[in-house]
Amino acid sequence: MSEMTSPSVAFLLYPDVTQLDLTAPAQVFSRLGGQTIHLVAASMEPVATDCGFSILPTAPFGEVTRADILCVPGGHGCVAAMEDEETLGWVRAVGGKAAWVTSVCTGSLILGAAGLLAGYRATTHWAWRDYLSLFGAEPVAERVVFDRNRVTGGGVTAGIDFALALTAEIRGDAHAKAVQLGLEYDPAPPFDAGSPEAAGPELASFVAERGRRESPTRDARIRAAAACMQPA
Amino acid sequence: MSEMTSPSVAFLLYPDVTQLDLTAPAQVFSRLGGQTIHLVAASMEPVATDCGFSILPTAPFGEVTRADILCVPGGHGCVAAMEDEETLGWVRAVGGKAAWVTSVCTGSLILGAAGLLAGYRATTHWAWRDYLSLFGAEPVAERVVFDRNRVTGGGVTAGIDFALALTAEIRGDAHAKAVQLGLEYDPAPPFDAGSPEAAGPELASFVAERGRRESPTRDARIRAAAACMQPA
Repeated sequence: MSEMTSPSVAFLLYPDVTQLDLTAPAQVFSRLGGQTIHLVAASMEPVATDCGFSILPTAPFGEVTRADILCVPGGHGCVAAMEDEETLGWVRAVGGKAAWVTSVCTGSLILGAAGLLAGYRATTHWAWRDYLSLFGAEPVAERVVFDRNRVTGGGVTAGIDFALALTAEIRGDAHAKAVQLGLEYDPAPPFDAGSPEAAGPELASFVAERGRRESPTRDARIRAAAACMQPA
Repeated sequence: MSEMTSPSVAFLLYPDVTQLDLTAPAQVFSRLGGQTIHLVAASMEPVATDCGFSILPTAPFGEVTRADILCVPGGHGCVAAMEDEETLGWVRAVGGKAAWVTSVCTGSLILGAAGLLAGYRATTHWAWRDYLSLFGAEPVAERVVFDRNRVTGGGVTAGIDFALALTAEIRGDAHAKAVQLGLEYDPAPPFDAGSPEAAGPELASFVAERGRRESPTRDARIRAAAACMQPA
């Protein structure tokens, strides 16, 4: 268990983020006790999420230069974030000093582009998993992956499991169980369709192909970002 | 299955909302297909959530007078919302005409205060369940409760299960399964502590009592709101 009496958590906030990648772990971390949570963006302007509403940053990049926990959410906007030197520079600087360097969903590709996952086991959204190796990471098909101080969660809703697991690591099991109970996290999915294995190959390829159609330049842009990767 | 080619979803947004109660179903409903999602508040000013950041409304009460789906999230701010005639008036007006009248967590108490749950089976956060009967609702210890066109979810994270279940009702099982897979909703909670039964009486009473200590006037204020309830 780490020693953190008043843990600081910094989330990267960027346009077209999958907002649940950020909002779910933020809800969990808001119950760490004594925490400070920052949503950090290029400016203080509202940031449009993928759900048609905007979230306000709490600080611009220049004002948050360190955090105990860095958490990078995913979303289709991750590709543009990986191409933005200012964003990568902030992630690299804060991640280089953070006690925990973390991500949810395709946020791990941003960590990768910032050079923070080379030589680490990591996960991401199942449909994007193959990209991880472009950044020198070892892709792992698990929901939450701890490797030293890197903690990466799978797609979107894995952010809840990720944040509870990290809460247990920082605050102990009893605290994490109380948070889980407070959030009534006793999941009852209506279907057994949450992983490609459970959903079956037909549905999995339908969902994966639709994602590719929605961002046809994704492959080329991620490969270009990987080619430009600077070691952290 | 309902007929909705372009479903409109209106979330109530109010101060000190438990943001995950809103953001989780918003993420699911953002994949209904052809949807419009509104976050509706008293004004267009940013609304402070319980997690130290603010969300921007997309419309004020006066601009959204109908919706196919009304969804009311919960949170400690629900008590003040139940005391606000303007808020209740909007919930009553939109809920009276909506195809689906829904809530997550203690949002059901706001529906109750607006007179929309009298005579309906409903659920809420486990630690607040007893309040439901003050509003003429029949409290049910289930994660998602359908009763005619009222759909209520349990505490916080139940919003995911609720929204997937309603998606299946509106768009069919195949569509809902694709959404579930896209969100990689294959939950793996680190502990079996998400319900009071699983967590055990000691942890459950610790969490419930802490909630009461944090809002000591809650009981009296909810009872007063119930006494003022007007039928929808």
